[in-house]
Amino acid sequence: MENGIPDKIVVAVDTIILAMGQSGLEVMLVKLKNKPYENCWALPGSVVGVFESLEETAKRILVKRVGDSRLHLEQLYCFGNPNRDARGRSISVAYFVLLSNKEKVNSHLTEQYLDMKWFNVNNLPEMAFDHREIVKVAMEKLAYKLDEIEIIRPLLPTKFTLSELQRVYEILSGKKIDKRNFIKKVKNDEMVVPTMEMKTGEAYRPAKLFRFK
Amino acid sequence: MENGIPDKIVVAVDTIILAMGQSGLEVMLVKLKNKPYENCWALPGSVVGVFESLEETAKRILVKRVGDSRLHLEQLYCFGNPNRDARGRSISVAYFVLLSNKEKVNSHLTEQYLDMKWFNVNNLPEMAFDHREIVKVAMEKLAYKLDEIEIIRPLLPTKFTLSELQRVYEILSGKKIDKRNFIKKVKNDEMVVPTMEMKTGEAYRPAKLFRFK
Repeated sequence: MENGIPDKIVVAVDTIILAMGQSGLEVMLVKLKNKPYENCWALPGSVVGVFESLEETAKRILVKRVGDSRLHLEQLYCFGNPNRDARGRSISVAYFVLLSNKEKVNSHLTEQYLDMKWFNVNNLPEMAFDHREIVKVAMEKLAYKLDEIEIIRPLLPTKFTLSELQRVYEILSGKKIDKRNFIKKVKNDEMVVPTMEMKTGEAYRPAKLFRFK
Repeated sequence: MENGIPDKIVVAVDTIILAMGQSGLEVMLVKLKNKPYENCWALPGSVVGVFESLEETAKRILVKRVGDSRLHLEQLYCFGNPNRDARGRSISVAYFVLLSNKEKVNSHLTEQYLDMKWFNVNNLPEMAFDHREIVKVAMEKLAYKLDEIEIIRPLLPTKFTLSELQRVYEILSGKKIDKRNFIKKVKNDEMVVPTMEMKTGEAYRPAKLFRFK
């Protein structure tokens, strides 16, 4: 610091870890320990190491939070408003990742945070920094990239019904979709192929199971 | 520096300034003055000021290079490989902008650079840092966003023929497009509307002029 002016910008990576839960699409948040953000919820993040690429930092966070570094990570955006961090000037390069199974997450609380929880993306708590905005930008990007298989694939089991696929589209786009139009679209896109199996054992009549091409 | 390990990461913004030229899509490059990149070509850039947002830095560069800050800027990606800059650890947040008229650019050489030139994006010189890769990523993004009007609009005059529109699509996608399919697509997308005018005075038969909706 020189005359109160910070002479460097801290570079951080924050991760938006998403998975399907009972309530719909959920994001993993951590409760911060240190002032001035004590008890605030935030995205899991870290300062970038001097010898790390940005993606390596994101993978390091992932290993710590979900015990897996082989997931499909994608850079979302770089956030750099001068007042985004009350502790000093920082920028955050945000990465998002979609998990196929929240329950399998091999996660544990470390000394770094007070708590860790999944929140529905439409029902977030008060959050530190600009992390609420970061989640919003992630949702916009997901809606925009809805037709990319890398976005959809992790959110469904290996075999799924068209109703299950439609639900994922509706959750990511935030819009109700007409069933007949959806089936037409799925056929046109040739993204999925039918299997020989049916989904049974539920309160509905049996439905054909599909898989991604 | 401490034991040869840099204790901070420099945050820079680099701009990919694009315009249509005689040769197709062209990018503005500057020739660097200082070692170790003396005489190397690079994208115009700047270190982010302590009180500036990333977008403000990008606008500052634009004003200096093209004399206009009201252009549609878009963040491309944040590049952060540890070895991308021989002078020390730095990250670059890249922004791209599409100019409607290269000839109108009110540009001038400043003491910062040795030279400034437009290069066809498919015929770039040797470039400093990872700037060649940055241009490549920008081209991929443009091809991906080809159907967004903000991408296409600046590259055409107010009124244009369908052949001119097709040429822009071909240049941005890097692919030859079948004329009949293109006309079908244009009609489906409802992105353009016909005007009452015709383009004449060239070696071809007169063609209908269109404008964006």
